[in-house]
Amino acid sequence: MSTEKSEDGTQPSKNALKKAAKEAEKAAKAAERKARQEAEAAAKAAAEVDDAADNYGKLPLNQSQTKTGEHRIQISSLNANAEGHHVLFRARLHTSRAQGSKMVFFAFRQRQHTIQGLLQLKEGHVSKQMLKWAAAITTESIVLVQGIVARPLEPVQSVTIKDSEIHIAKLFVISSVETRLPFTMDDASRPEEEYERSEKEGIQYNRVLLETRLNNRVLDLRTQTNQAIFTIEHGVCGLFRSYLDSQGFTEIHTPKLQGAATESGASVFKVQYFNGLAYLAQSPQLPKQMAIAADFERVYEIAPVFRAEDSNTHRHMTEFMGLDLEMAFEESYDEVVDLLDSLFLSIFEGLSSKYASEIALISKQFPAEPFTWRKKDQGGTLRLRFSDGIAMLKEAGAEVGDLDDLSTENEKWLGRLVKEKFHTDFYILDKFPMAIRPFYTMADPEDARYSNSYDFFMRGEEILSGAQRIHDASLLEAEMVKKGIEPASMKHYVDAFRLGCPPHGGGGIGLERVVMLFLKLNNIRRAALFPRDPKRLVP
Amino acid sequence: MSTEKSEDGTQPSKNALKKAAKEAEKAAKAAERKARQEAEAAAKAAAEVDDAADNYGKLPLNQSQTKTGEHRIQISSLNANAEGHHVLFRARLHTSRAQGSKMVFFAFRQRQHTIQGLLQLKEGHVSKQMLKWAAAITTESIVLVQGIVARPLEPVQSVTIKDSEIHIAKLFVISSVETRLPFTMDDASRPEEEYERSEKEGIQYNRVLLETRLNNRVLDLRTQTNQAIFTIEHGVCGLFRSYLDSQGFTEIHTPKLQGAATESGASVFKVQYFNGLAYLAQSPQLPKQMAIAADFERVYEIAPVFRAEDSNTHRHMTEFMGLDLEMAFEESYDEVVDLLDSLFLSIFEGLSSKYASEIALISKQFPAEPFTWRKKDQGGTLRLRFSDGIAMLKEAGAEVGDLDDLSTENEKWLGRLVKEKFHTDFYILDKFPMAIRPFYTMADPEDARYSNSYDFFMRGEEILSGAQRIHDASLLEAEMVKKGIEPASMKHYVDAFRLGCPPHGGGGIGLERVVMLFLKLNNIRRAALFPRDPKRLVP
Repeated sequence: MSTEKSEDGTQPSKNALKKAAKEAEKAAKAAERKARQEAEAAAKAAAEVDDAADNYGKLPLNQSQTKTGEHRIQISSLNANAEGHHVLFRARLHTSRAQGSKMVFFAFRQRQHTIQGLLQLKEGHVSKQMLKWAAAITTESIVLVQGIVARPLEPVQSVTIKDSEIHIAKLFVISSVETRLPFTMDDASRPEEEYERSEKEGIQYNRVLLETRLNNRVLDLRTQTNQAIFTIEHGVCGLFRSYLDSQGFTEIHTPKLQGAATESGASVFKVQYFNGLAYLAQSPQLPKQMAIAADFERVYEIAPVFRAEDSNTHRHMTEFMGLDLEMAFEESYDEVVDLLDSLFLSIFEGLSSKYASEIALISKQFPAEPFTWRKKDQGGTLRLRFSDGIAMLKEAGAEVGDLDDLSTENEKWLGRLVKEKFHTDFYILDKFPMAIRPFYTMADPEDARYSNSYDFFMRGEEILSGAQRIHDASLLEAEMVKKGIEPASMKHYVDAFRLGCPPHGGGGIGLERVVMLFLKLNNIRRAALFPRDPKRLVP
Repeated sequence: MSTEKSEDGTQPSKNALKKAAKEAEKAAKAAERKARQEAEAAAKAAAEVDDAADNYGKLPLNQSQTKTGEHRIQISSLNANAEGHHVLFRARLHTSRAQGSKMVFFAFRQRQHTIQGLLQLKEGHVSKQMLKWAAAITTESIVLVQGIVARPLEPVQSVTIKDSEIHIAKLFVISSVETRLPFTMDDASRPEEEYERSEKEGIQYNRVLLETRLNNRVLDLRTQTNQAIFTIEHGVCGLFRSYLDSQGFTEIHTPKLQGAATESGASVFKVQYFNGLAYLAQSPQLPKQMAIAADFERVYEIAPVFRAEDSNTHRHMTEFMGLDLEMAFEESYDEVVDLLDSLFLSIFEGLSSKYASEIALISKQFPAEPFTWRKKDQGGTLRLRFSDGIAMLKEAGAEVGDLDDLSTENEKWLGRLVKEKFHTDFYILDKFPMAIRPFYTMADPEDARYSNSYDFFMRGEEILSGAQRIHDASLLEAEMVKKGIEPASMKHYVDAFRLGCPPHGGGGIGLERVVMLFLKLNNIRRAALFPRDPKRLVP
C-alpha cells in the first residue's frame, strides 16, 4: 500500500493538504524557537558557571573516612586579637538572614556561645548559588565554617562574642535538620516577663510551655540557659566531692536493688527480679550506715534515688539525684552539722566564683534576687531550733502545733520570716520532733520529744534532711517496733550494729533542688536532664 | 487449825520429830557458814577497793550529750617523734592478749592502720580489776583509748605502725560487739596460698569462703585489704572524673527509669510504675547520645547499670557501676579512642603513684604480677585490629571464624598472646565485625562487614566497649530494622538525630572490672561494696 493513500484508501482533499502544511510550518517554528531558547540557556549557563562549587554543600555522612588533621577552634577562644586569623569550626546554625542578594548574616552557636558570620558575594570565591544555598540552610543544622576573623565596625549585640565576627570562605552542612522544629531557640530562651510585657504591647510571641519543652527536651536543652544550668549542676557535684575529698571521705556505690522494701514500704518501686521481687532503694540510708559500721568512717555517694510517690508538684520527681553522706563523729552530731554547713558554704562560694557568667546568663531568663547566705565572718549560718522556728511562725499568726511537721506552706512562711529577720536564704533548723522523723533517728538526750535531727533550707524550701542515727541494735529495734516496722525485715541492717558501730550522722541532699533554688528556676524539672514524674517516663 | 498438826490432821511420829531437829541443826550451820563467807568477802573487797574505777568501763550510749572538745588523733599520724605525747583516740579493738596477770597487749585498728597498746598494772592508775575487764573486751568493739606514745624496744612486727606504741592510761568501750563474730579479721585477711601452705604443714586455719564473707559483708569489709580495695575504687572514679574534667566534659545524670525496654529487651528489669510499667536502664547509651544531640559536646556519667542476665560467673553482676562517656568528634572516631586511651593511662598512672601503699597492702592477700601497660614513651598503648587478633589466635591454633564474637576463653587466650608478644596487660582491639555489635554502631567506611567499634582489655578481659555511633536518623532506623528492633519503640531517641547531631562516639567502662583486674582480685564481687547477682539481693 502506497504511503500517499489515506488510511481509508480515499485520496486526500485540498483542505486537508492545506491544514497539514500549516501544521508542519507551526512545528518547524516551535522547533526553531526551542532550539533558540536552549542555545540562550546554554549561553547563560556558560556565563554563570559556579566557580564556588567546592566551597559549600552538604558533606557526605561522616564514617571517619577522612582525616585532614586541620585544627578546629572553639569560638569562645576568639577575641579582637584574633583579627585576620584563618579559622575552621563546627557549630550549630543559630540564625540566618539574607540581606539583598549579595550578603547573608549568620549567628553560629557552640553551647553558650554565639558569633556572627558574614557571607558576601565575591567573584571566584562566593557565588550567587552559594549565597542562595547558604541562606536556605535550616537553623539548628550543624555546619562546618571556614573563614577569617574580622573586627566588626561596632560590637555585635545579638551574639555573645561581640568583638569578633567571621568572614566566611567555606560553609558545609555536617548534619541537617530533617524535621519541623517544634519551637525556635529564641522562643525557648525568652523570660516569662517578656511574654507578659510583649502581650501588653500587642506583640505575639510563641510561649513555649514546660510540657512542650520536656516533650522535646533534646531541642530545649540546647538553649544557652539550659547549657548553663547543667554546667552549674556539674559544678555542684564537683564542689560537693572536692570538699568531701578534702575532709577524708571515701566515695561509695551502694546497690539500688534491695531485697526488702526498706524505710517506708508505701513509696517503693517493685522490680521483677528473676523469679522473685526486688525493690528500688529510696535512699542509700541503710547501706551508707552499714559502711560506717564497716569502718569506712566518712562516706559519700552521688546516685539516683527512687520515690514511688504520686506527687505532682513543682518539687517532686520519682527519680532524682541524691548527694548523700554519712560520717562517724567523736562526741556530738554538731560535728556533722558543722561539716555539712561548711560543705554548703564551699558549694555556694564555688558556684559564685567559678560560674558567675553562667549564673548571669541564666538570670536573664529566670530573673531572681541573688542567693544570699551568711558568710563565716558574718556570724556564719543561722541555726534555729525547731521550737524557735515554731515560735516565730506562731508570732506571725500561724496556727501550728509544737510537735507537728512543717507543711510546705509553713516551711515557705518560715523562710520568709527568716529572710526578713536574718537576711539569709540559707539556714538550718535543728532538733526536730522525734515523732515526725524516721525510726533510725537518735532522740535528744534532754527531751525525748525532740531528736538530734535537722533540715537545711534554701529560699524557704528543704534541701537536706539528716540526723544523728541510732548506732545501738537494741534501741534501733525498739524504735522500729514503735513505728510499726518488723526488725526482721531489715535483719542485715540491724545486725550491722551488733558488730559494734561508732556514733554517726549524716544527711541526704537533693541535687536538683539545690540547683533549682540557687537559680530560682521554680520547677525542679528544669534542673533534671530528662525528668521523671508520675506522668512522665520519656524522653 | 493449829500449825502443829500435820496436814492430814494426825499427830507427828517420833521419827519425824528427830528428822526435823536434824534439819534445823543443818540449816543453822549453813547460815553460820554463809555469814562467815560474806564477812570474809567484805573484808577482801575492802582490801581491794578499785582505785582505777574512773579509768575504764563502758561509756553510756552517745546521744551527743557531752562535748569536751578534747582532740582525738588518727593513729596514722603517729611516728617515733610523737614519743611522750598524751593522745586520745577512737579505734577498733583488733586483738588482745593478756601476759600473766599484770599486763595486757592490744592491737588497735583504724581502717588500714594498726598500733600496739600496752596496759600494765600500776598502783593508783591501773588496777587488777581494770586489767581483767580490759582483757575481756571482745575484739571488734569500738574503744576510746587515752595514753602516752612510747617508742617500743624493737619495731612491732604485728601492726602497721611499727615505731610507736601506746601506754594506756584509760580505756573505755564506746560500742561493744553483741554477737558471736562469724570469722576473725586474721582469718579474713589471709591469702589463699597461706591456707594451702599451712595445710601441708598440718596447721588448720579457718578458710573464710567468699559466700560467708558476702553474707557477713559489714564485718568482711573491715579487713585492711578491703579498706584498701575501696580506697582504690574511690581513686578510679576520682581519676576518671578529673581527667575528663580537664578535657572539657560535663557530668550528667540520666534517668534509670525508662519508658521502654531499650537496646535488648531480654535482659531488662521490669518495674511496676504506678499503673503501668517502666524498665531499668541497661546503660545510659540512649540518653548520653541524646545529650550529644542536645549540644553537650562531651559528657560523662558514673551511675549504676542494671542487667537482668542470669549469668553466674566471676565477672557478672546484675547491678554494677558504669563509667560512661560520649563525645562529639571533628573528623574521626580515632579522636575518641585516643581520648579513652589517655584516660586509662591517666588512671593507671594515678593509681600507681597515689595509691602505692594500698596496692602493696592488697597484694599481700591477693598476690599478683604488677599490672603493666605501655607508656607513651614506650610506643603507647597497643592497638590491634580485630582481624589481626583473630589471625594471632588462629596462628596459635584456635578455631575461630573471622567474623565471630570472641568467647571468654578466646578473649583470655588472646590476652596471653598479646602479653607474650607485646608485654602489656592493656590493649585495644579495634574494628569489630558489624554483625556482633549493637544497632547504633557505625560501619567501617571501607569494608561494611566491619565497624568503627572497639573494646579495651585488662589482663585479657574486656573492660570497655565503645564505638562511633550512627548520627543519621534514616540510617539508624535501617540498622534497627535489620536487627529486628521496631524504630517506633525508641522514637525519642531516633527523633533526637532528626534535629541534627554531630558525629560522635564513646564507651562504657565497668568500674568493678577495672578494679578487679588492676588488682587481680579474681572475682568481681570483691570490688563491689554490696554485690548483686541473680542469687544475691542482700545485704
